[in-house]
Amino acid sequence: MVRTVIDLNADLGEGFGRWTLTDDAAMLSLVTSANVACGFHAGDPSTLRRICETAVDRGVRIGAHVSYRDLAGFGRRAMEVPGDELADEISYQIGALQVFARAAGSTVAYVKPHGALYNRVVCDEAQAFAVAAGIRLAHRELPVLGLPGSALHTAARRAGLPVVNEAFVDRAYTAAGTLVPRGDPGAVVTDAERIARTAVSLARDGRTTALDGTPVRVRARSLCLHGDTPGAVELAGRVRRALEVAEVTVEAFV
Amino acid sequence: MVRTVIDLNADLGEGFGRWTLTDDAAMLSLVTSANVACGFHAGDPSTLRRICETAVDRGVRIGAHVSYRDLAGFGRRAMEVPGDELADEISYQIGALQVFARAAGSTVAYVKPHGALYNRVVCDEAQAFAVAAGIRLAHRELPVLGLPGSALHTAARRAGLPVVNEAFVDRAYTAAGTLVPRGDPGAVVTDAERIARTAVSLARDGRTTALDGTPVRVRARSLCLHGDTPGAVELAGRVRRALEVAEVTVEAFV
Amino acid sequence: MVRTVIDLNADLGEGFGRWTLTDDAAMLSLVTSANVACGFHAGDPSTLRRICETAVDRGVRIGAHVSYRDLAGFGRRAMEVPGDELADEISYQIGALQVFARAAGSTVAYVKPHGALYNRVVCDEAQAFAVAAGIRLAHRELPVLGLPGSALHTAARRAGLPVVNEAFVDRAYTAAGTLVPRGDPGAVVTDAERIARTAVSLARDGRTTALDGTPVRVRARSLCLHGDTPGAVELAGRVRRALEVAEVTVEAFV
Amino acid sequence: MVRTVIDLNADLGEGFGRWTLTDDAAMLSLVTSANVACGFHAGDPSTLRRICETAVDRGVRIGAHVSYRDLAGFGRRAMEVPGDELADEISYQIGALQVFARAAGSTVAYVKPHGALYNRVVCDEAQAFAVAAGIRLAHRELPVLGLPGSALHTAARRAGLPVVNEAFVDRAYTAAGTLVPRGDPGAVVTDAERIARTAVSLARDGRTTALDGTPVRVRARSLCLHGDTPGAVELAGRVRRALEVAEVTVEAFV
Repeated sequence: MVRTVIDLNADLGEGFGRWTLTDDAAMLSLVTSANVACGFHAGDPSTLRRICETAVDRGVRIGAHVSYRDLAGFGRRAMEVPGDELADEISYQIGALQVFARAAGSTVAYVKPHGALYNRVVCDEAQAFAVAAGIRLAHRELPVLGLPGSALHTAARRAGLPVVNEAFVDRAYTAAGTLVPRGDPGAVVTDAERIARTAVSLARDGRTTALDGTPVRVRARSLCLHGDTPGAVELAGRVRRALEVAEVTVEAFV
Repeated sequence: MVRTVIDLNADLGEGFGRWTLTDDAAMLSLVTSANVACGFHAGDPSTLRRICETAVDRGVRIGAHVSYRDLAGFGRRAMEVPGDELADEISYQIGALQVFARAAGSTVAYVKPHGALYNRVVCDEAQAFAVAAGIRLAHRELPVLGLPGSALHTAARRAGLPVVNEAFVDRAYTAAGTLVPRGDPGAVVTDAERIARTAVSLARDGRTTALDGTPVRVRARSLCLHGDTPGAVELAGRVRRALEVAEVTVEAFV
Repeated sequence: MVRTVIDLNADLGEGFGRWTLTDDAAMLSLVTSANVACGFHAGDPSTLRRICETAVDRGVRIGAHVSYRDLAGFGRRAMEVPGDELADEISYQIGALQVFARAAGSTVAYVKPHGALYNRVVCDEAQAFAVAAGIRLAHRELPVLGLPGSALHTAARRAGLPVVNEAFVDRAYTAAGTLVPRGDPGAVVTDAERIARTAVSLARDGRTTALDGTPVRVRARSLCLHGDTPGAVELAGRVRRALEVAEVTVEAFV
Repeated sequence: MVRTVIDLNADLGEGFGRWTLTDDAAMLSLVTSANVACGFHAGDPSTLRRICETAVDRGVRIGAHVSYRDLAGFGRRAMEVPGDELADEISYQIGALQVFARAAGSTVAYVKPHGALYNRVVCDEAQAFAVAAGIRLAHRELPVLGLPGSALHTAARRAGLPVVNEAFVDRAYTAAGTLVPRGDPGAVVTDAERIARTAVSLARDGRTTALDGTPVRVRARSLCLHGDTPGAVELAGRVRRALEVAEVTVEAFV
């Protein structure tokens, strides 16, 4: 018997002090991996602690959602950071989260870059190398969650780090299997029914339908859900139930 | 044969990005414990990494010099922070430093509060409790370096944390064994010869002479040197040589 | 004929970058004075600009809602800041807001401290003096909005600054005319009907009923509404309509 | 009789809180225009105030040295900032400085971008447009100091802002009149004698000698001196004396 397994990840803890974006408690009942903001684009220490405690309580894996140092821009401003400084900033964030993960009885189980850094290390080899170096300094075998074929995955593999592929349930794909750029017509899917179907198709068949109608292969061990949109919790619940109905096991990758 | 042992600690890494205050490389050849700024009052990630690497290289212990979140005031502005938030901010800083200490082959060996927080937790029991809780979350047996008789030491002991006493070689003491408040006449000693003599006396005899001439007992396992004053390196060298001449073993407390 | 006039003020622009708290556009249709966060506890530059533009569009006065430098604590952490530094931080914030107020065709018309600073300068004479000095540096005749009898009002008067009294429509008063401390039972009123009645009574009669039932005199030219609570806009609308029904003219104080 | 006139500008106030880089008091006796850090890459409010007071005292013009929001990278990390946000951040910084310039009896007389932003707007038309828009919002006729031929100067002219050209006394030029990129051999000149000669040649003749020996025309109304290098004050003094000996009048451009 073949068991189909998929992880659900979401960006959580995206508040800072008085401000909140994500319904962390609700989302932690639905996802299996939590990408936790570490203080550079969002994430005050008390939020880190609470998320780690709740995540452990619900069996959710804790990932470090590392970012450029950019509270004002929420980590969405790409930055030219010297490689060694970027690496050290990555390590710093992982360490800060680790103290709460450990205290809660778990550990930082993987790393996923946030926002502009995520986009940058799809292609920028120097920054990808720096991010991989920063992760490796924190832990020699810490998995990197990201886009298949990205410069980050290449750099991570070279650094001896495991890589895990993710796919997006609410983003359109090209026939070549890459994401349709945000801003292009049809790039972002909002229809809940279609998102749930896409999730099942990605998880069970490793396939989805490209924007032009072509069937396209997208291999991913994890599906990214969004936590900061209105209706995020409801949509995540719908995706999770659709997967369970389709007899896909929702399970962390690590 | 009785061996007299003393630790020398100094606040290091007190720069941020483009700015530096302390000659970390030189001081790390003279002290046995480095209180490393963790990013809240000073301390960018690359400085943390470099200090940890050099400290390990020279056999110096790494301590987390935790602070209020106050870059603009260098951690010298006392703050009313709710206890749980303060505790979490302390844990966060320890975790951030820990990643670099571990990568360098060591560990965060102790914690010492910085600036306004150091002064505050001499008497403020609520904040002392919060600091101790934050340290304990990071590690159940992490020693706390501070002032004998402080509220922090009481709170730390109650939390099951080891405490280590420190004394100041360039501050005058009262006949009661407490520090003469900064700002009072004679509170700060600048004469290098006298500082060196005080260091030997504190280390070897557990005594110094109070400002009013009374001999006073001050038991300390560590002496605090300043790293951010002009001539800091020379003074530290002089203190260290005076201790060695007096056959005091200069050695970390942990 | 006597015309009864009252100002309605609210704290606005309390977001930062990706985060928002207050429905600024809606509130600016209801209040006559906007206390605009200037970047130290909240308030990114684009939010400042937008609020100033909308405020001018709707005839709302622009006030500088100055704060301790404390994004992480939303300006709710009281801080020991040396007087000259605090004064300069106040001036800096006023200047930053002024550029947008001017560009929109208006000016910073008054200053009101935020959060912990507001509470601190009720009694702390040194900080009150510093705040008044910082305001005066920005403009010699800039009105200060605050609590009657506060140390800030005393310091402001001595500095030659006009002072304006405000009252709170959703806070209980003591028989002595001071606020019942937050946290005490009954300190915060949530019943909309009662809040609207209190507003009318404060505006028309300069009176309200103390928590113990005693009638109490509270003279205020401005009433403070809250902008960051759920239902804030609806409540503000209700207060405004009640005042209009009672033939109170809702009009800025400057 | 033709009077040859040149302005000397330097980046000042490049500290933050406890940290300092530049000897502001000494430099303000030598330059005629001070590029004052406004808080985004450096520059705490008290430093802004002190520089403005001293500048007015010595007849030095006050310029806003505006930057990306990047304390950790000292404004040397180029950032992808949306145009409207960048414009608003520029306005904010100008306003913050303006309050101190006004209080000292002067005004912000010009704007010069700092660090990575300065370099970016040499070519990046979108960011140049945003910077010009941000300056214009603050004041419709505020001069922009920068590199001749830069995208910023083009954008500034289109926005109706005056532009002022500056040249660098310690940087080598190409035969085409552009700067030899930092990092290329010979790009930075350290010989004081040669720097002084270059200053005179630039000021009196509008010429210098390119790295390859070709005479090259460089028209500039202002010469940029560095304030943050060891020996900066001595070098600035030498340049100023060489200009005076050559009967060049050292005078601000505005």
